[in-house]
Amino acid sequence: MNIEMIRAAAARLTGHARRTPLLSSPFLDEIAGRRVWVKAESLQHTGSFKFRGGWSALSALGDEARRRGVIAYSSGNHAQGVAAAAREHGAPAVIVMPQDAPAVKIANTRALGAEVVLYDRVGGDSREAIGGAIAAERELTLIKPYDEPQVIAGQGTAGLEIAAQAAEVGVRRADVLVCCGGGGLSAGIALALEAEAPELRVRTAEPEGFDDTARSLRAGRMVANEAPSGSLCDAILTPEPGALTFPILRRLAGPGLCVSDDEALRAMALAFARLGLVLEPGGAVALAAALLRRDEIEGDDVIAVATGANVDPALYARMLHTHGQSPARTGH
Amino acid sequence: MNIEMIRAAAARLTGHARRTPLLSSPFLDEIAGRRVWVKAESLQHTGSFKFRGGWSALSALGDEARRRGVIAYSSGNHAQGVAAAAREHGAPAVIVMPQDAPAVKIANTRALGAEVVLYDRVGGDSREAIGGAIAAERELTLIKPYDEPQVIAGQGTAGLEIAAQAAEVGVRRADVLVCCGGGGLSAGIALALEAEAPELRVRTAEPEGFDDTARSLRAGRMVANEAPSGSLCDAILTPEPGALTFPILRRLAGPGLCVSDDEALRAMALAFARLGLVLEPGGAVALAAALLRRDEIEGDDVIAVATGANVDPALYARMLHTHGQSPARTGH
Repeated sequence: MNIEMIRAAAARLTGHARRTPLLSSPFLDEIAGRRVWVKAESLQHTGSFKFRGGWSALSALGDEARRRGVIAYSSGNHAQGVAAAAREHGAPAVIVMPQDAPAVKIANTRALGAEVVLYDRVGGDSREAIGGAIAAERELTLIKPYDEPQVIAGQGTAGLEIAAQAAEVGVRRADVLVCCGGGGLSAGIALALEAEAPELRVRTAEPEGFDDTARSLRAGRMVANEAPSGSLCDAILTPEPGALTFPILRRLAGPGLCVSDDEALRAMALAFARLGLVLEPGGAVALAAALLRRDEIEGDDVIAVATGANVDPALYARMLHTHGQSPARTGH
Repeated sequence: MNIEMIRAAAARLTGHARRTPLLSSPFLDEIAGRRVWVKAESLQHTGSFKFRGGWSALSALGDEARRRGVIAYSSGNHAQGVAAAAREHGAPAVIVMPQDAPAVKIANTRALGAEVVLYDRVGGDSREAIGGAIAAERELTLIKPYDEPQVIAGQGTAGLEIAAQAAEVGVRRADVLVCCGGGGLSAGIALALEAEAPELRVRTAEPEGFDDTARSLRAGRMVANEAPSGSLCDAILTPEPGALTFPILRRLAGPGLCVSDDEALRAMALAFARLGLVLEPGGAVALAAALLRRDEIEGDDVIAVATGANVDPALYARMLHTHGQSPARTGH
């Protein structure tokens, strides 16, 4: 895992992934007590940064492997990133999803051209057993969501953009807060910044109760979460840091940050009112930390990566009811 | 009013206005029956394209006039665009607003550094009389919302970007649908495209009952709307086309398009689900026309300008309740 892999991934992604904008608002600056820059990966294809990793992995395959196809386990953003990238590569994609996943997520993944294989999560089916049998029979390549070098390389291309965009707006030194599940995006960005903008330092942002990376960084070894679920931030609930990603973060990342679900909702409301961005809870934790953890951050600038927009409309409407009126509504 | 003014405005806006992205989604393409490209001016500073015109006008002033300051009448997006541009130029700004405007809009305009002067719309105060007296006394420059060459030039810079971005994605020929109130943005984009991408043709998009531009284009002369209000699309309700903008549109624009409020809400829901973009009703009518008027549009591609994001959270939540579930929710 090195910067050359990220640069190579960036070359493969050119013209396919979006260079997402770096946004800001004086109203957010005022809340944070410093300048806040938001890297809007929620505007990436499929509504999250996962398209970068999916494209990187697909485009790194040999022709033969690509022709046979790929497989992924996910009912979320990784599924869609892989499905969309596979379709554009003309590669078959099998996505193994729990049969109790929302019908519309299943429909969407199918609409992106993937073959969806359902398993009975509640009844005790093993998705690895089901997926493994299909992968073996059809010689599919498994694309893991974060512990996969080409996926980390793909996510790291966001870091190359952050380095360039920070320079464009005159920011040389800042904390770069990244919403963190398994750590693929955080690790990729950390490697990119180490090479391109070493005074920009990655710090992970996680939801309360799922701050395995923050605790692991403090402990100096991998520590797992106690609960498997129980946060609104569904996109970034992973049991523990990745085996590939954690050593990178341990070497390069600053102390991890942690916010509550309610703070994530507040950040979503502020992104709505001040940036015109739809964010999902797990995609808003870095912005929440940038805005609401001012005493844990140093310097005149902070960069927050907004990682995803795939949120249930009913949840979003509830968020607007509970948090939409507190930040002044228009303006930006 | 000519292309050189737009190019000069673009030079003045460089590094200040955002180059907003051109977004797309296969799900939108499927609805529209062709490729749909969304120019996301809702991500511009202050949440609408109006910042361009405000900046263009402020930056075109001489030092002396800028020192004295500017005045604008508006409780909406133009107010904020002018206020933000004036603040960054160190110029005093007076915004004349009705005293029954939402408190939060008044607070926001003040927070952007403007001096807000309230008038009693219901009691019959004339904002022109009040504003005119202040302007005369303090020698302020009036910045009109659309019938103002430097404002049209500023809005036209979005057209230069559309020409470049369409070329980047390989689109040479398409209708460019623009949400239209007084026509400043439509006219500016039309002039820019005439010079830079003559096979991209501007077409205005308006709400039902407020299609003065479409009817004027059909009639070959300026025709006014019957009602002064009565649409959700508050940002683009103007009594009739502008005296400067209409001749430009008459020469360059194709037939105007018109959508219902309900169709604007549908487009807002699709922008939420498929693009991660917050749009206000008046900022969504061009996208609504692109998606829902397929028989009135020709060609393989259509470009829709999404013009604003400043929407009341309660209205947005209602939109999600009524329209949020019909488009499949995640995916993009």
